[in-house]
Amino acid sequence: MQNQSTMTAPITPTDIAIAKRIQSIDPSDCQLYSEDGFWVVDLNVVRRQLERWRKELPLIRPFYAVKCNPTPRLLAFLAQSSYNLGFDCATHAEISQILNLGVPPENIIYANPCKAPSHLRYAAAASVRTMTFDNSTELYKIRQCAPDARCVIRIKLTPGAASHTDGDIETPMYDLSLKYGVTFEGARDSLLLARRLGLSVVGIAFHVGSGQADVRAYARYIVEARKVWRLAAETGHVFSLLDIGGGFMDERFEEAAGVIREVLEREFGDMMRDGNVQIIAEPGRYICAPGFTLATNVIAVRAEDEDSGGVSGKRAVYLADGMYSNINAAMWPGELTFPTVVRGRRMRAMDEAEVAPVSPVSNDSGVEFDESEGSNAGDGEVGMRMEGALQEYTVWGPTCDSSDVILKSAWLPRGIEVGDWFVFKGLGAYSVCMRNPFNGFSTEHEFYYIDE
Amino acid sequence: MQNQSTMTAPITPTDIAIAKRIQSIDPSDCQLYSEDGFWVVDLNVVRRQLERWRKELPLIRPFYAVKCNPTPRLLAFLAQSSYNLGFDCATHAEISQILNLGVPPENIIYANPCKAPSHLRYAAAASVRTMTFDNSTELYKIRQCAPDARCVIRIKLTPGAASHTDGDIETPMYDLSLKYGVTFEGARDSLLLARRLGLSVVGIAFHVGSGQADVRAYARYIVEARKVWRLAAETGHVFSLLDIGGGFMDERFEEAAGVIREVLEREFGDMMRDGNVQIIAEPGRYICAPGFTLATNVIAVRAEDEDSGGVSGKRAVYLADGMYSNINAAMWPGELTFPTVVRGRRMRAMDEAEVAPVSPVSNDSGVEFDESEGSNAGDGEVGMRMEGALQEYTVWGPTCDSSDVILKSAWLPRGIEVGDWFVFKGLGAYSVCMRNPFNGFSTEHEFYYIDE
Repeated sequence: MQNQSTMTAPITPTDIAIAKRIQSIDPSDCQLYSEDGFWVVDLNVVRRQLERWRKELPLIRPFYAVKCNPTPRLLAFLAQSSYNLGFDCATHAEISQILNLGVPPENIIYANPCKAPSHLRYAAAASVRTMTFDNSTELYKIRQCAPDARCVIRIKLTPGAASHTDGDIETPMYDLSLKYGVTFEGARDSLLLARRLGLSVVGIAFHVGSGQADVRAYARYIVEARKVWRLAAETGHVFSLLDIGGGFMDERFEEAAGVIREVLEREFGDMMRDGNVQIIAEPGRYICAPGFTLATNVIAVRAEDEDSGGVSGKRAVYLADGMYSNINAAMWPGELTFPTVVRGRRMRAMDEAEVAPVSPVSNDSGVEFDESEGSNAGDGEVGMRMEGALQEYTVWGPTCDSSDVILKSAWLPRGIEVGDWFVFKGLGAYSVCMRNPFNGFSTEHEFYYIDE
Repeated sequence: MQNQSTMTAPITPTDIAIAKRIQSIDPSDCQLYSEDGFWVVDLNVVRRQLERWRKELPLIRPFYAVKCNPTPRLLAFLAQSSYNLGFDCATHAEISQILNLGVPPENIIYANPCKAPSHLRYAAAASVRTMTFDNSTELYKIRQCAPDARCVIRIKLTPGAASHTDGDIETPMYDLSLKYGVTFEGARDSLLLARRLGLSVVGIAFHVGSGQADVRAYARYIVEARKVWRLAAETGHVFSLLDIGGGFMDERFEEAAGVIREVLEREFGDMMRDGNVQIIAEPGRYICAPGFTLATNVIAVRAEDEDSGGVSGKRAVYLADGMYSNINAAMWPGELTFPTVVRGRRMRAMDEAEVAPVSPVSNDSGVEFDESEGSNAGDGEVGMRMEGALQEYTVWGPTCDSSDVILKSAWLPRGIEVGDWFVFKGLGAYSVCMRNPFNGFSTEHEFYYIDE
C-alpha cells in the first residue's frame, strides 16, 4: 500500500517562487495587469535536460530551435552554457537575435527550406552559410543570394513506402512532411540541379514531426538519410553533415535516444569513427518545455446554476491568460499540461458580511433574497495548492471569443474563486512566442528565474 | 448573354494602390521585410458601411467593437466622424486607446461580462460607467470596484426554448452564448442581487454570435430582451438601454436590419416613441472588414513533381503571411476571402539564361540534366491580376508549422512564382489584431490609406 505522502507531488523551487509572488497580489487593490500570468523559469531544469542529452546522445550536437521559445534570458543562458550548443534559426529576426548574443555564425543553421529572399541575403551577409532547401526554386534563390552557402537537403519519406517494413509510423502532433521535404526521387533531381548551379550541398536534414511519440520514426528517417547520402556521392557532392531534426519529447527521450544510437551505429558507424560525418539535431520542446511554469489568475467565476440556465452544471472560471496569450497550447490536442490550482488572495467584495442592508423590493414579485449567495467560504493558506473534493469546471480564456476555451471539462478543486491561480507546468514550448494582443490583453508578462 | 466586361471585377482604387506599391518591390534586391504583407485601407468603404447603417438602422447607435480591428488610424477616423459612433471596449488597453482619442467616457460601453479587477478599477476611475455583467460574482466585483456603474445585464436564450416557435436558429460562426450570458431565470436572480448590493442595472445586452447569418436570431433575442425588461420593473430596476450586440454580416445587412426594425417596432415601439429607451449595437466586422485589403508576397514555390514525390500533383506556394500573422482567418472556416493573384517582379535567379555552365558530373549515375527546369515564362505586367489557365495549389504560411496552411487546395492561375503577390480583400476583421511574432516573423506591416 502506498504511503499517502508519496501520492502528493513534492514542493519544488518553482512552487515556492509562485507562492511567494502570489502572496503579494491582492485583487482588491492590485495594479493594472498584475493579475496577468507570470512565468517561473527553472534554469536548473534546462541544465538537467542538457545533461540528459549529453549522457544519452554524446555524439550529436544539439542546435536549439529558437522558434520554440526565444525568451532572451533563456537564449543567453544557452549561448553561454558549456554544452557546445548551436542554434536552429528560421528568419532574419532569429538569426539576428542569436548573433547579437555573440554566437559565431558557424554555430547557426538556417533551417528554413523556404526562405524569404531578403532574409536569405541577410544571412549570407552575416556569414550564416549552413542552410536547408527542399525544392529547385530555393536553389535558384540561394545561387543568387547566397552562392557560398553550405546547402543541406531536407528530405522526407516517400508516402506509403514506410509501411512495407514494420508497420505505419504514428502521426506526430505536427506532421511537418506535409509542408517540407523532398522524397528520394526529388532529392536526385535537386542534387543534380545544385551541381548545375555550382552550389555545394553538404548534408541531409530531416524532421520526424514536432512532438513525435513514435520513436521508430527516427530509425526510418536515418535509414532513408543513408540512402540519400549514397545518392549524393553519385551526383558529385561530398556530404559531411547529418541533421536529425527535432521532435524529441521529454517523457520518451531515453527511449528515442536508444533507437537513434542503434540505427546511427548501423548506418553511419564507420563514418562516425572516421570523423567523416558531423551529426546535429534541432531540439526545441525537449530543452525548454519542462523548465517553464505559468501561473495565471482567475479573474471571473460563474456558478453552476448561472451557466446555461442550470443545464450544464459546470462551474466556469475565466483566466487572465488564454489561447491568444500564453496558453496557445489550448488549441492543440495533447499540448496542454493539466493545471494545479493555488489559493490566492480573494476580493473583499465576496465577503457577505460587507453587503449593506437595502430596502426590500416594493413590488409584487414576491421573490425572497437567498442569503447564502455570494458566500466565500474557503480554506487553506494563500500560495498553497488547493486540494480536496472536486467539481466539474469549464476553464475559459479572457477574450470575448468563444473559441478561447482552455479546458472544456476538467475536474478541479471545489470552491475556486476570483483571485485564485492556475499553474501550468512544463508549458515552455510554443507558448510565450505566440502571444498576441487580441482584445487589448497584454503581451508583456513577468519572468522569474531560478538558477543556482 | 452577359457582356464579357461585366464578368470581370472592376478596377478599384485599392487595386491601383496595390499595383503601384508592387512595382517598387524587386525580390532580387529589396530591403529586409519588404516582401511582407501590406494593407490598403479604403476609408471610403468604411464610410459607405456607416452610411448604410444610418439608412437602415437610423434609431440604433453603433458602438464600434474595438477588438475587431484597433488600427489607430481607423479608430481616429471613427472617433472624428459625423456618425455619432460609440465604442465597445473589453479591456483597459482598449478603453485607454479610445479615451486618448478624445472620446468622452460616456461614449464607451465596457462590454465584457467577466472583467479583470484591475481593469474594472481603471474604468471606474476613468468615468467609464456603462458596463455589462452576467453573473453574481461580477456584481460583487462591480460593487467593490465601480459602485456607481450603470450595469447592463447580458442575456442569452434558454437552450431549446427557441425551437418551440419557428425552428432552430442556425449556429453562428462563433456562438458566444457558450461563454457569456444569463438565461431568463438567471436574470431574475441577478437583478435581485443587484438590488441587494445597491447597484443600478440600466439595461440589457445580448449578442447573437459573431458572423450570424441567420437573421431570425435578432428577432428571438429582441423578444427575449422585452421579457427581461418587464422582469426588471418587477425587481425594482428602471431600464433605459437596449444593446443588440454585434454579429452583423456585410452581405446580409439589409435583411438583418429589416428584421430588427420590424421586431423592435413590435416589442419596443411605444418606448422608442416616448424616448424611454436608447438602442445601441456593437458592430465590428460589418464596419471594418470590407475596407481592408491585404497583399502579401510569394516567398517560395514548389513544383507539382517536388511535392510528396509527385503524388499530390499540387504546386505549393509559401506566402510571407500566414495564420500567425495577418491571415489568422485561415484557421476559421468561412472567414477567409478567396485571393486574387497579382504579378510581381520576379527574381533574376529564375532566368535560365543566367545559369553558368558547369562541368558534367564525373560519375556513373548517367543522369541527364533537364534543361527546361527553372524556366521562368510568365506573361502580363507587374501589378496586373494574373488570369488564364488554372492549376491546383496548396497555399502555405511562412512559419515552420505544418498547421500554418492558408488554403489546402485552391485553383489559381498557372505559373505563380516567387515575387508574385496574393491579394485578400475584405480581411479587416480579426486579422491585424491577432498578429504574433512566432518564428521571428514581423508583426509590423505597412498601411496605405485611401480617403477622398
